Amino acid sequence: MSPQNQLWIYDTTLRDGSQREGLSLSVEDKLRIARRLDDLGVPFIEGGWPGANPKDGQFFAQLRQQPLRQAEVVAFCSTRRPHCPAAEDVTLAAALAARTNWVTLFGKSWDLHVTEGLKTDLSENLSMIYDSIAYLRQQGRRVIYDAEHWFDGYLNNPTYAVQTLEAAIRAGAEWLVLCDTNGGMLPHQVTDIVRTVSQWLGTLNLENPPRLGIHTHNDSELAVANALTAALEGATMVQGTINGYGERCGNANLCSLIPNLQLKLGYHCLPPEKLTMLAATSRYVSEVVNLAPDDHAPYVGLSAFAHKGGIHVSAVERNPKTYEHIEPSAVGNIRRIVISDQAGLSNIMAKARSFGLKLDRTNPTSRQLLQRLKCLEDEGYQFEAAEASFELLMREALDQRPTMFEVRGFQVHCTRMPHGHPVISRLPDTLTNSDSLATVKVAVDGKDLLHAAEGNGPVEALDHALRKALEQFYPELERFYLTDYKVRILDSAAGTAAKTRVLVEFSDGEQRWTTVGLSPNILEASYQAVVEGLEYGLLKLRSQVKAKLVACQS
Amino acid sequence: MSPQNQLWIYDTTLRDGSQREGLSLSVEDKLRIARRLDDLGVPFIEGGWPGANPKDGQFFAQLRQQPLRQAEVVAFCSTRRPHCPAAEDVTLAAALAARTNWVTLFGKSWDLHVTEGLKTDLSENLSMIYDSIAYLRQQGRRVIYDAEHWFDGYLNNPTYAVQTLEAAIRAGAEWLVLCDTNGGMLPHQVTDIVRTVSQWLGTLNLENPPRLGIHTHNDSELAVANALTAALEGATMVQGTINGYGERCGNANLCSLIPNLQLKLGYHCLPPEKLTMLAATSRYVSEVVNLAPDDHAPYVGLSAFAHKGGIHVSAVERNPKTYEHIEPSAVGNIRRIVISDQAGLSNIMAKARSFGLKLDRTNPTSRQLLQRLKCLEDEGYQFEAAEASFELLMREALDQRPTMFEVRGFQVHCTRMPHGHPVISRLPDTLTNSDSLATVKVAVDGKDLLHAAEGNGPVEALDHALRKALEQFYPELERFYLTDYKVRILDSAAGTAAKTRVLVEFSDGEQRWTTVGLSPNILEASYQAVVEGLEYGLLKLRSQVKAKLVACQS
Repeated sequence: MSPQNQLWIYDTTLRDGSQREGLSLSVEDKLRIARRLDDLGVPFIEGGWPGANPKDGQFFAQLRQQPLRQAEVVAFCSTRRPHCPAAEDVTLAAALAARTNWVTLFGKSWDLHVTEGLKTDLSENLSMIYDSIAYLRQQGRRVIYDAEHWFDGYLNNPTYAVQTLEAAIRAGAEWLVLCDTNGGMLPHQVTDIVRTVSQWLGTLNLENPPRLGIHTHNDSELAVANALTAALEGATMVQGTINGYGERCGNANLCSLIPNLQLKLGYHCLPPEKLTMLAATSRYVSEVVNLAPDDHAPYVGLSAFAHKGGIHVSAVERNPKTYEHIEPSAVGNIRRIVISDQAGLSNIMAKARSFGLKLDRTNPTSRQLLQRLKCLEDEGYQFEAAEASFELLMREALDQRPTMFEVRGFQVHCTRMPHGHPVISRLPDTLTNSDSLATVKVAVDGKDLLHAAEGNGPVEALDHALRKALEQFYPELERFYLTDYKVRILDSAAGTAAKTRVLVEFSDGEQRWTTVGLSPNILEASYQAVVEGLEYGLLKLRSQVKAKLVACQS
Repeated sequence: MSPQNQLWIYDTTLRDGSQREGLSLSVEDKLRIARRLDDLGVPFIEGGWPGANPKDGQFFAQLRQQPLRQAEVVAFCSTRRPHCPAAEDVTLAAALAARTNWVTLFGKSWDLHVTEGLKTDLSENLSMIYDSIAYLRQQGRRVIYDAEHWFDGYLNNPTYAVQTLEAAIRAGAEWLVLCDTNGGMLPHQVTDIVRTVSQWLGTLNLENPPRLGIHTHNDSELAVANALTAALEGATMVQGTINGYGERCGNANLCSLIPNLQLKLGYHCLPPEKLTMLAATSRYVSEVVNLAPDDHAPYVGLSAFAHKGGIHVSAVERNPKTYEHIEPSAVGNIRRIVISDQAGLSNIMAKARSFGLKLDRTNPTSRQLLQRLKCLEDEGYQFEAAEASFELLMREALDQRPTMFEVRGFQVHCTRMPHGHPVISRLPDTLTNSDSLATVKVAVDGKDLLHAAEGNGPVEALDHALRKALEQFYPELERFYLTDYKVRILDSAAGTAAKTRVLVEFSDGEQRWTTVGLSPNILEASYQAVVEGLEYGLLKLRSQVKAKLVACQS
């Protein structure tokens, strides 16, 4: 009952995606991501390789207790070992134990991998494919066959490669997924080979012909293009991962692929109302796997619809089509007017609107703000990446920045001078102790507070002292944590006397905000940014609470 | 005299690349990148938009003093303003003042942008294109015409779009570059449209037909694919940026495009021996712009050829083709496998040679150095851009690092706490006084020295104190000055407790050298780098003096 132009999205973030260097998922992480993908309307979610590690087995067990709402969760496994009956193979047994409706089984398409990797002969590999699938079918499973190294295999020995697909079809595979495992293919090669396979399938005159799928890697920066071209040649399953996570250079990025397919080519991949959850899903997954989101990611990145420059901004406001390939809200993203020294009054107006602040173009404050902005950017401030600081600046000009606390100053003392022996060595293993002491003076409700704290380095000491002083008044501060800290030296010709610009990013687990500090003194610049980051977080939290209260009362 | 399959690479990192949010380049940064691209063999380097900002004018002026070796540096500008003679147009005058051989002029192809953006009529836009190019030609410039929004314009109004190209051809443009400015095109659309334009050009029967170029953006994650498909349809200029930097989601990434074109399609883009500099160029540019390199970048990323898993590794070692789409060394990258490998040792040998140090492959020191290097890079050190520190490390292992001085430790005290009124304000005009005091303890010839100095910020105070202590022994220190100081936070998830890596560049007016420091304490990391920078300068100066003495005596 699926529409003519239906494509099936197959997510492998939990299996192939987790092969990315530096990414590791707990069972809990995997469950969270699976439920989020289920909400997004992804029809197939590859959960892992049961038996390959204990986590994956637990994941399937837990999902049996609390099943997903609509998605098929799929177990992944390899063909049986050479010369071993399928019914006695441990990896097949583990895949069956996951008790999923669908199993994805991968086999070798490339003769080189059969002889050099598996160290068996070509006909045994065909039996391995046939036997494994037939056994899974006997046990009631539906089978997706991943033809590993398909394209390299086909280019090297097309006759043999086609025989591997034949074995899978005879055994009852319902999907044949053509894999560019090494990520080396170019789009015109994918077009030619998928077309050939599709035509060959047609010549078989099968009653229930298997469908084709595509699985691509990004080693040539072409994973999205290669998947797209395969879809245009008739592949109806598209495999990929959220944010393109995966081994080496990653897998095909579903966050780009899905909108390309659905918004530009008219395929039906996700329920239309779900597509607007894409940007949030991308960010959610990056939070769960604890990797910084790529701000420049197509469609879903923070900068994907960011505009700078006055004329440019006024054009995009009059007609978004002039500088935007799609409507950002279609994928749940937003247009961002970037504040920079090229800013005109249009930028200021657009920013005020996005902050939910009322500001009229004729209000003299608008022009004063623009002047102030240009002046500060001349000094070396940069608000392009520090929107929270800019919002505070704007609120101040509009008398909408309540005083949470006032900063009076700080002292920092830092000692790296033990007795007798050198401490400056390449291996900073001696640095695990706190070596810095900070004292801060802040005022809340007109009352001066003096607090001191230690830290591993002066910036940490300052952060600790500041929280110590403020947490009695604002216990919600503990929800904020620093997620990024960037330092740049301006006017580098001035050497150590140059100005330092610090950008600090905070998060409360849901939202992120960035503030800026500037000073010739790196500690002061850091302190400014941290102070504003905490202030902004408090301000946002309070306004949310207030909005909720108003909503309840009305 | 170029080969049949020649493609001209046109780098716009310095202009379009610098539109990336958060990226800002000094004149010095721009010169460094231009020289590096020149070394790489890039034939066209777009230097900037003279007149749009003062920096770009200075850049061209400085290049006239010290020209590049082989690359054409190109000035970028827009067409003249509506109803204003070209000879009186300030933007054209500024482009001419750059005194380059080539100028890239962009004009509007999309009727919507003419009427809504420029707010003029369609025929005036044609005159603007014609007049501007004709004027530049009169003034002796060769012209590349960037047809902005070409693809959107062509899809919206093909007749008008073609008229804009006609105007450019009649006026004498030598290249027509088709731009996907909004980055929304899909490869099959690019194929069709470039093919149509190419065929149309053929029907004109021109004596010297202009050539076609392609300029793509990555908003659909297809910039590389779109440029590739245009090249296959006959475009012979490919525009892009190093690391794909650019506005929103970036430009076509030359680090992926070049190897795709050269290694896989047999085009001639760079001199073959230069292609092996690609990975180092990518890293160098990311250091200069102070953005973390993308470890997962195709071809040039640290993880691009990283292998995990036992079977996988042994297969790749037996036959790399099984899991690698190209030989990593072809782009100057390395296969990364956990066990120590020959590639690493070759690097050590190559480095030793470049430092003029004798080191044999069979010398156990070589392998120890490799181990030490891997261990330090694991910690977060990075020697790619800090060769001076690496040379010191190597000299130490070879017992060729004389002890100039020993560092015993330091103390820093920093106060920003006057009485009564807040000091943390946006305008740091109160910060011109020294606010930091540093004490350092160093030993020269076994004698401990304790010196203190003030500074505007803690790093300057440390620098002052160190020089005060050492200058009595090494008066030549006053010749060295800091020319750059970069800070990066590693492991940013740890917030203010994360490790800090500092790169410091010194100069003595003739040579420059860079050192690295690493610590969770930003002051210690800075101090390490400054100390090594001074040491390295002294070492070099003394060895030069010695070489001169030897030369005189012999």
